[in-house]
Amino acid sequence: MPLPDGLPMTVPAPGLPARVRIHEVGPRDGLQNEQAVVPVEIKAEFIKRLAAAGLDTIEATSFVHPRWVPQLADAEQLMPLLGGPELPAGTRLPVLVPNERGLERALALGVREVAVFGSATESFAKANLNRTVEESLAMFEPVVAQAAAAGLRVRGYLSMCFGDPWEGAVPVDQVAGVGRRLLDLGCDELSLGDTIGVATPGHVAALLTALGAAGVPAGRLAVHFHDTYGQALANTLAALQQGVTTVDASAGGLGGCPYAKSATGNLATEDLVWMLHGLGIETGVDLGRLTATSVWMAAHLGRPSPSRTVRALAGTPSHQEN
Amino acid sequence: MPLPDGLPMTVPAPGLPARVRIHEVGPRDGLQNEQAVVPVEIKAEFIKRLAAAGLDTIEATSFVHPRWVPQLADAEQLMPLLGGPELPAGTRLPVLVPNERGLERALALGVREVAVFGSATESFAKANLNRTVEESLAMFEPVVAQAAAAGLRVRGYLSMCFGDPWEGAVPVDQVAGVGRRLLDLGCDELSLGDTIGVATPGHVAALLTALGAAGVPAGRLAVHFHDTYGQALANTLAALQQGVTTVDASAGGLGGCPYAKSATGNLATEDLVWMLHGLGIETGVDLGRLTATSVWMAAHLGRPSPSRTVRALAGTPSHQEN
Repeated sequence: MPLPDGLPMTVPAPGLPARVRIHEVGPRDGLQNEQAVVPVEIKAEFIKRLAAAGLDTIEATSFVHPRWVPQLADAEQLMPLLGGPELPAGTRLPVLVPNERGLERALALGVREVAVFGSATESFAKANLNRTVEESLAMFEPVVAQAAAAGLRVRGYLSMCFGDPWEGAVPVDQVAGVGRRLLDLGCDELSLGDTIGVATPGHVAALLTALGAAGVPAGRLAVHFHDTYGQALANTLAALQQGVTTVDASAGGLGGCPYAKSATGNLATEDLVWMLHGLGIETGVDLGRLTATSVWMAAHLGRPSPSRTVRALAGTPSHQEN
Repeated sequence: MPLPDGLPMTVPAPGLPARVRIHEVGPRDGLQNEQAVVPVEIKAEFIKRLAAAGLDTIEATSFVHPRWVPQLADAEQLMPLLGGPELPAGTRLPVLVPNERGLERALALGVREVAVFGSATESFAKANLNRTVEESLAMFEPVVAQAAAAGLRVRGYLSMCFGDPWEGAVPVDQVAGVGRRLLDLGCDELSLGDTIGVATPGHVAALLTALGAAGVPAGRLAVHFHDTYGQALANTLAALQQGVTTVDASAGGLGGCPYAKSATGNLATEDLVWMLHGLGIETGVDLGRLTATSVWMAAHLGRPSPSRTVRALAGTPSHQEN
């Protein structure tokens, strides 16, 4: 039974930011892990609804070779569907580009913001990119340089920032070192990924402290938590307490680690918004419209959203489909 | 894909307690909200397995009139099954007693620890107890006095400490006032319930501050969060940061608010243990044996546990049924 208006109460906590930018990854990180390929028209509609709900940064797709991620092989078809006046002015639509070929494809479509995808560990660099960490940085260098020369904003993702399924605990200084290298290549922002969802709040604080010691201020960082062990929101709180103001999340909690079938996916955007609004932190998001969008998408995918907030609010009148 | 050993890494955070006592509520708060009545032998086995997993405080059942909670109508049959040497010495088995009649039944069975169940709001006091807050305190007074006279430890539960489905936001001073009254009756401990799961971390800190101002130290408090909106673990972190060292949780995330069918239940003990052990906080719990117990119980109930940690670990060799 929800509160009378279905929205969180607001009680601020000292020391937290006044506003948080949510980097919505559902259309990319969420849908790339779906078994079924979602039709391109549904993807475009999903992104438009997310934008209408107030999300101003929506990672739209990936320009990885279609052989590796067939779920997002329609990037060339998707991007033109997002060019019209239906998206609010200023909506940012970053895309993933793995290499120079991917960047060329993205530039040809008029993309204004891209992301490269690195690894903090050798094991995952090998598994995901078939390269050493050093070789992957060398691969990213011309991509970031050309993107910057074209005036694009560039995000650097860093995977396995806490634990790695092959290597176990990943030393914070190792993560800070690789992260610093990615920023030094010219990335504007670094997103710290807990790819297998094993971090806890003290580990988050320790990594952010190590990055600060390496000369990386919290303002250039984003956190990207997975909810595999239910820790994502507590870890987010720890990151906010350390000054982070950009948080990655996935509408409805779509997505997950492709290696872990039983695992839940990304931090759900709705659960994040509930906490942020409860803390009096501005996001620009309309929780009702966002929840309705995830209910709509869940109906398309044929299974309920794993987001606790979506499940709790799905039946309430103020959170029906928009 | 979990870490190599399936256990959290340990990275402490400053300012948190060295040890947390988990007050396990699954057999009572969890099973009282199950549609099906679980056989008494299964309940006893559940409690024994939880104790073997290292939980030292397990709320066993309720002495509410069987008409109101038929799921726990077998309290008289259950308690004698727990008296043998199979439980570790010192295992605490508190039970809920609503009134003097319930206390008499509990005392006749040799119970050593009881809990009364109050409300911070008039609406829920009326709905749950058919009394005003004042009348319910008057009902508890002789119960607490007699229990204390018999040498029993007494816990006071307080429901709707954050939001109320009829009244909306509940003022922290109102909660602190009623909570203080419960302690003044002679309760040893006060458990603050977010019955509908709507709290956020700033609200938790504000309530604990208000209780401190009312003369209630954190050491006499427990927090009891529901994960309806996915906030339970972040709220727990906020409570630990305020000095709370007793946390209620339910193995496997059993339970929920009987008014909200779509809502998830209590904070899952496994998700809590993952965070606490990750923070280097001692609990005495063996996560593998606990997870195996919840997998066993889920098989009995015929549906998967809602705990993220249980789902992630259920398939790993180190967390099979014990």
